[in-house]
Amino acid sequence: MRTIVVGGVAGGMSAATRLRRLEPEMEIVVLERSGHVSFANCGLPYYIGGVIEKRSALLLQTPSSLAARFGLDVRVRHEVVAIDRAARTVTVRDLDGGTEDSLTYDWLVLSPGARPVRPPIPGIERALSLRDIEDTDALAAAAQGATRAVVIGGGFIGVEMGENLVHAGVEVSLIEATAQCMAPLDPEMVEPVHARMRSAGVDLRLQGLVVSIDEEGVTLDGGERVAADLVVAAIGVQPDTQLARMAGLAVGERGGIVVDEHCRTSDSAIFGVGDAVEKRDAGDGSSVLVPLANTANLQGRRVADVIAGRAVEVRPVQGTAIVGVFGLQVASTGWNEKRLRSAGRAYRAIHTHPADHAGYYPGASTMALKLLVDAETDAILGAQGVGQAGVDKRIDVIATAMRGGLGASDLADLELAYAPQFGSAKDPVNMLGYVAENLATGLTENIQWHELQDALDAGATLIDVRTAKEHAAGAIPGAVLIPVDELRDRAGEIVSDDVVVHCAVGVRGHVAAMMLARPGRRLRNLDGGYMTWKAGETTQ
Amino acid sequence: MRTIVVGGVAGGMSAATRLRRLEPEMEIVVLERSGHVSFANCGLPYYIGGVIEKRSALLLQTPSSLAARFGLDVRVRHEVVAIDRAARTVTVRDLDGGTEDSLTYDWLVLSPGARPVRPPIPGIERALSLRDIEDTDALAAAAQGATRAVVIGGGFIGVEMGENLVHAGVEVSLIEATAQCMAPLDPEMVEPVHARMRSAGVDLRLQGLVVSIDEEGVTLDGGERVAADLVVAAIGVQPDTQLARMAGLAVGERGGIVVDEHCRTSDSAIFGVGDAVEKRDAGDGSSVLVPLANTANLQGRRVADVIAGRAVEVRPVQGTAIVGVFGLQVASTGWNEKRLRSAGRAYRAIHTHPADHAGYYPGASTMALKLLVDAETDAILGAQGVGQAGVDKRIDVIATAMRGGLGASDLADLELAYAPQFGSAKDPVNMLGYVAENLATGLTENIQWHELQDALDAGATLIDVRTAKEHAAGAIPGAVLIPVDELRDRAGEIVSDDVVVHCAVGVRGHVAAMMLARPGRRLRNLDGGYMTWKAGETTQ
Ligand SMILES: Cc1cc2nc3c(=O)[nH]c(=O)nc-3n(C[C@H](O)[C@H](O)[C@H](O)COP(=O)(O)OP(=O)(O)OC[C@H]3O[C@@H](n4cnc5c(N)ncnc54)[C@H](O)[C@@H]3O)c2cc1C
Ligand SMILES: Cc1cc2nc3c(=O)[nH]c(=O)nc-3n(C[C@H](O)[C@H](O)[C@H](O)COP(=O)(O)OP(=O)(O)OC[C@H]3O[C@@H](n4cnc5c(N)ncnc54)[C@H](O)[C@@H]3O)c2cc1C
Ligand SMILES: CC(C)(COP(=O)(O)OP(=O)(O)OC[C@H]1O[C@@H](n2cnc3c(N)ncnc32)[C@H](O)[C@@H]1OP(=O)(O)O)[C@@H](O)C(=O)NCCC(=O)NCCS
Ligand SMILES: CC(C)(COP(=O)(O)OP(=O)(O)OC[C@H]1O[C@@H](n2cnc3c(N)ncnc32)[C@H](O)[C@@H]1OP(=O)(O)O)[C@@H](O)C(=O)NCCC(=O)NCCS
Repeated sequence: MRTIVVGGVAGGMSAATRLRRLEPEMEIVVLERSGHVSFANCGLPYYIGGVIEKRSALLLQTPSSLAARFGLDVRVRHEVVAIDRAARTVTVRDLDGGTEDSLTYDWLVLSPGARPVRPPIPGIERALSLRDIEDTDALAAAAQGATRAVVIGGGFIGVEMGENLVHAGVEVSLIEATAQCMAPLDPEMVEPVHARMRSAGVDLRLQGLVVSIDEEGVTLDGGERVAADLVVAAIGVQPDTQLARMAGLAVGERGGIVVDEHCRTSDSAIFGVGDAVEKRDAGDGSSVLVPLANTANLQGRRVADVIAGRAVEVRPVQGTAIVGVFGLQVASTGWNEKRLRSAGRAYRAIHTHPADHAGYYPGASTMALKLLVDAETDAILGAQGVGQAGVDKRIDVIATAMRGGLGASDLADLELAYAPQFGSAKDPVNMLGYVAENLATGLTENIQWHELQDALDAGATLIDVRTAKEHAAGAIPGAVLIPVDELRDRAGEIVSDDVVVHCAVGVRGHVAAMMLARPGRRLRNLDGGYMTWKAGETTQ
Repeated sequence: MRTIVVGGVAGGMSAATRLRRLEPEMEIVVLERSGHVSFANCGLPYYIGGVIEKRSALLLQTPSSLAARFGLDVRVRHEVVAIDRAARTVTVRDLDGGTEDSLTYDWLVLSPGARPVRPPIPGIERALSLRDIEDTDALAAAAQGATRAVVIGGGFIGVEMGENLVHAGVEVSLIEATAQCMAPLDPEMVEPVHARMRSAGVDLRLQGLVVSIDEEGVTLDGGERVAADLVVAAIGVQPDTQLARMAGLAVGERGGIVVDEHCRTSDSAIFGVGDAVEKRDAGDGSSVLVPLANTANLQGRRVADVIAGRAVEVRPVQGTAIVGVFGLQVASTGWNEKRLRSAGRAYRAIHTHPADHAGYYPGASTMALKLLVDAETDAILGAQGVGQAGVDKRIDVIATAMRGGLGASDLADLELAYAPQFGSAKDPVNMLGYVAENLATGLTENIQWHELQDALDAGATLIDVRTAKEHAAGAIPGAVLIPVDELRDRAGEIVSDDVVVHCAVGVRGHVAAMMLARPGRRLRNLDGGYMTWKAGETTQ
């Protein structure tokens, strides 16, 4: 029996090693087009930035180490150029020798990954992209000689490249076509990310479309020129399906190879895993592209199980992801508000600004968290977080709660490890649960930053319950100041039956709302307070 | 309607503030024996150590701030000395005025906390304990003048006090009666904690019983003297039930006030929350004492809901806890192996030593993780972790998985946020799931460090699959060295049908085990490898 694996990195190599463990006797051949296998894709930007100093650190395994430990037949610079499904053979081109060979398989695993999107604009051939070690070497060399770079695209890789080129001493303009970087985040959540990039020296240009690239830089759609001696295209990735398409395997409408819950393609002897395949969304079962290493590695392991006859299934995906941006942690899981809104789902959003650990212990910093909740079932639909520290933990906990089927209100009584340097007696996640429970039971009502203007236009009274000093430093137009600690005495000043209260983050607003509630009065607390409103207004 | 709350810190004050939000008109009186309310108990040791510099940082609220914001009637230095259940009154002693007063209640909430255990040994009155701000002031003053301290007890507070006295420039001997500090951890997990304390200069004395205390220090049971001009007793805490007992409320066999899932005591007008009450264990429903701030705060909030007529229930507790020890994170949730063994439960233990983030990204450090799994149902029963970084996150994720009812094997496909500075493509939690799944499906078998000797005595062959260099630096007696990368060729050298393989941590051992498996041969991988074995042997 012979299994051939196409692509020797995350999904492919995880499949090969696991398969070896399960099938000591099977012949396993791994064919890899580039010059390296098992490399740390996710570390490539940091090598360019000099954060990872040694190139060898990126190479986790080599063909010979994989032969010694796992008895794998790993061939780099070998590209699979065709699949003959009827004959169960692949045509392999030796990229150094230039020869072609045919290899038979019993099982074929495709893990070719995703290729960078390269828009068809004049001069695109001047732009570098980042996918493998060869690209990395080219980019690192180019960064050496460069003084000004343009990075096109504000997604994960664009943002990482922007940061790392700064680390490499290059002046960076980052050009993003939409109004915000990091599409998985909603606009009000991304504001600190934009601010951080700018304060770190990145010339961030939103709503800028690059229409051409030439020797001196790029031209934007408005005619504006941005000088650059290095241009990086990081506009996103698309499944590498050339081989699959040529072989007539089913490719879905998202552009990925179609596989079932056993990673089987439309040909039962051929499997597909990783960035090249479409996944099932945990939210609604639809087909989605989730090009993440965790998923690729897991699918690789699962496909080996399937080939070895073990009963396993690949689960639908939530798409939990994180990126570092000049020391900020930016993470998300599940759906965002944009997507919920465009799908017409009934949801509730909750914004908080907790400290990563007890405020009385040195070094605490504030993060922004957002939880999205099914308005009918209380199910957790998604979460986002941005902050200096502790965001990764909260997003992982929420992702786990989602996977475990906990409702948003159940977050209230999660028992999370608390000592003052690590969290709070009411952890930020618990606090999200408190707020969710109040909303779910109808005890409180909130209003989102983007809904406020409509409410005011409809005649709502807006009360700012912060201190006079906070109010003076920046206020929402039309807000009347009554500090929460005076509210008990001054409640009578508020006569309206449509009241919105707000504070800086929502906590004092909640206290005020509970105090001012009375039958017949609609009382809403501005969710996330002034901070979320301000961030939303800024990015919008 | 009047609610009286006894004890104005974690549970008590959370009950009062929530109740105010729910019941704007209710009269709420908080009676607190000490001179302060709403203080950060968990920060007290760090103030003594100078880590928290300002005493005011410990005082989160004051009676006047609570009056202004919440309209609470908060009286410090007021001790409740008796409850007349028939008359629904409490007798309150004004500790400054010396007068006594009687106050009627409709609802009474007891949150008196726990008091330090003070063993009845000669001289115990010389030992200081740490519970409130007054204790803290006394201890901080004593630490100023001290040069040598003895801390009695190696639990959470003892360990924190040991560290903080070192920070305060005092030489510390920490004396623990059992063979290990931090009872929630199993012996092999606590070894790095002992090592860290010792390398930080703590004179750690295990299996030492203090039999008397005098002016010059303490005497141990063996007659040994340990000099000290400051003695701190941190032997544990016990529920403060004096008032409850006097009032004839039911007190359980663990010594805590008995309450139901609505925090109701045996008197339906009286509630109990926090450290003073017995909780239901999430593992087996038994009564347990879990003196933690998260639980106390949550119960306080829940009891307010109950009084306000909201439908809520207090869930059984897992007891997730963490402590910092000179930069080490030491955390646990659920049951430990000791407890499972003594309860006669069928369990599996898994030990791993993963890095907190990708090894190729700078700054990664290794942690030790332990997962305990129900051998029949695959349910997660508990987890422990010790390491420099990222332990809090993994324990919180596992605690959440337990709460969500995920099985140990389900940890394999948790989608956790990955970028190289925050985790691994296969997160340590995923990896625990991989191992659990292999065990649950019978693909692999492991053997624990404490089972190894019996297996060897029974004739098993032990193969060390590490490198010759690793073997030379320290090996298990009787182990035969065959490095994993030579094993493919040298497998024939192993003839036994009872084989135990081991490497440093278990990963190469797993590869070797899968390679050497054959029908009729029992093949076990030493769980956690040499590292766990060595740690266990050291602490045992
Ligand atoms: C710069 C960068 C940063 C990233 N950062 C993160 C991160 O922080 N977190 C995260 O979760 N994910 C990150 N990712 C994504 C992650 O690396 C991918 O999700 C993962 O590697 C996908 O695994 P895969 O096996 O599907 O594809 P890959 O790992 O890309 O492997 C595919 C391999 O197949 C080879 N191949 C393709 N076609 C053929 C053929 N016909 N014949 C032979 N070989 C072929 C390719 O050369 C390639 O090496 C990052 C990716 C990049 C590029
Ligand atoms: C030094 C120290 C460090 C800690 N560190 C941590 C940690 O890192 N993580 C963690 O989770 N937990 C920690 N804890 C435990 C945590 O503080 C408690 O679990 C929590 O405070 C319990 O809340 P409670 O309301 O039950 O009792 P407490 O917060 O102790 O409040 C009880 C109050 O009731 C008052 N009282 C008692 N009897 C009467 C009476 N008859 N009349 C009037 N007042 C009365 C007492 O004076 C006391 O102030 C620590 C505790 C201490 C002492
Ligand atoms: C590293 C790579 C070759 C896979 O190798 P691998 O041997 O499958 O994976 P690991 O070294 O992580 O080891 C995992 C195995 O050890 C086992 N294991 C881990 N800790 C163990 C322990 N303490 N005891 C027993 N077994 C243990 C796991 O169960 C797993 O085995 P299984 O799959 O049979 O269950 C492949 O993932 C790769 O090429 N990665 C680099 C590229 C990449 O991932 N890029 C994207 C991210 S940058
Ligand atoms: C602080 C203390 C007085 C309680 O005050 P509190 O007002 O109940 O608690 P917080 O300030 O944390 O605020 C929590 C409230 O704000 C709400 N909230 C938090 N963020 C919010 C947001 N963004 N929007 C709306 N509401 C929000 C929560 O829902 C909760 O209200 P609820 O209980 O009615 O649901 C009490 O816990 C205490 O004394 N603590 C110190 C002692 C202690 O805990 N020691 C042990 C650990 S060191």
